[in-house]
Amino acid sequence: MNTILKKLTETLEAKKKDDPSKSYTASLYRDGLEAILKKVNEETFETIIAARQGDNKELIHEVADLWFHTLVLMAHKNLSADDILNELSRREGTSGIEEKKSRANKA
Amino acid sequence: MNTILKKLTETLEAKKKDDPSKSYTASLYRDGLEAILKKVNEETFETIIAARQGDNKELIHEVADLWFHTLVLMAHKNLSADDILNELSRREGTSGIEEKKSRANKA
Amino acid sequence: MNTILKKLTETLEAKKKDDPSKSYTASLYRDGLEAILKKVNEETFETIIAARQGDNKELIHEVADLWFHTLVLMAHKNLSADDILNELSRREGTSGIEEKKSRANKA
Amino acid sequence: MNTILKKLTETLEAKKKDDPSKSYTASLYRDGLEAILKKVNEETFETIIAARQGDNKELIHEVADLWFHTLVLMAHKNLSADDILNELSRREGTSGIEEKKSRANKA
Repeated sequence: MNTILKKLTETLEAKKKDDPSKSYTASLYRDGLEAILKKVNEETFETIIAARQGDNKELIHEVADLWFHTLVLMAHKNLSADDILNELSRREGTSGIEEKKSRANKA
Repeated sequence: MNTILKKLTETLEAKKKDDPSKSYTASLYRDGLEAILKKVNEETFETIIAARQGDNKELIHEVADLWFHTLVLMAHKNLSADDILNELSRREGTSGIEEKKSRANKA
Repeated sequence: MNTILKKLTETLEAKKKDDPSKSYTASLYRDGLEAILKKVNEETFETIIAARQGDNKELIHEVADLWFHTLVLMAHKNLSADDILNELSRREGTSGIEEKKSRANKA
Repeated sequence: MNTILKKLTETLEAKKKDDPSKSYTASLYRDGLEAILKKVNEETFETIIAARQGDNKELIHEVADLWFHTLVLMAHKNLSADDILNELSRREGTSGIEEKKSRANKA
């Protein structure tokens, strides 16, 4: 796993012991799955708006927010960025995501 | 950048020259921004459903789909996974995403 | 209840006995809750895009699609437009949705 | 138009002159299109969660919230519930939404 995703995974794991009144991530863990999913949904909305506005800096910002909150979701489920990367790797490695998606689309 | 994200970035760039009738990704590029965003929105829905069902394998599958389509979005805008990772790195490196989000939340 | 919402409620109820291979609504009932919710989510995306594009005719079209699919959802749960209208009426009638939302927002 | 939708349309129109610091709806108008769409998107998320939880009372509550915010969106665009109902009426009256959606789905 690359440096920042590895570091972020460790940070998100460590935050599980933090004080929710002082840490944003810890407050998401405390509020639970629905609160985390609500943020994932919100960041997707922000990504859509930024992409349509054509502001690349804002778009990068929002997609980073979206990835961050999916990583909080992973951590909450005791999963990590590795699981996502391994799944992407598996697809690329076997028949390729292209064909996989292509098939799914035709189904 | 880690191996799979680097490989995926190269693959997504190469697909820009592929035949949309034979490549799922090339067909997304051809259909344009709204079609790509529609898929990002759909994968977020699938992520929410999978997370609520408590099926981790399905959840990993859907989050990988979501990341994949945000990378198609990046490529469509001539951006890449590097831009997302650099932004995540910048946050972790400076004051930390924690504080940043914490401030944003209080605003 | 007004004429079209009453008629639509009756139509959606009657569709429960229709052949899913011939009726779009019947096919949604057959595919079940997740399929219906996926369409509600999709129509919300279309509404967002149309509203941003500033095309009022398209916006009306998409909001009508969104309302239609929430009514399919209601029917699937053996609820109807009346339940939504009664809830809106209750809020307007008592302290008003204004105050209600205002309080919720401050919470 | 039925009584409550007519009343709500008048209320939403009147709110355009209200003080945003005292009225939730007036604050949405002031914050503008993106803020209103963000709420529409959020209420759709809440609708999905409530529908999956199988709590009908909560579901009615969230769909009413969703309809309310689409009506705020209409008012913001100088449109109203009438436009939505007329569109639904037009579909039911001509070839029917059934066939229309059916065709759209096959396209």
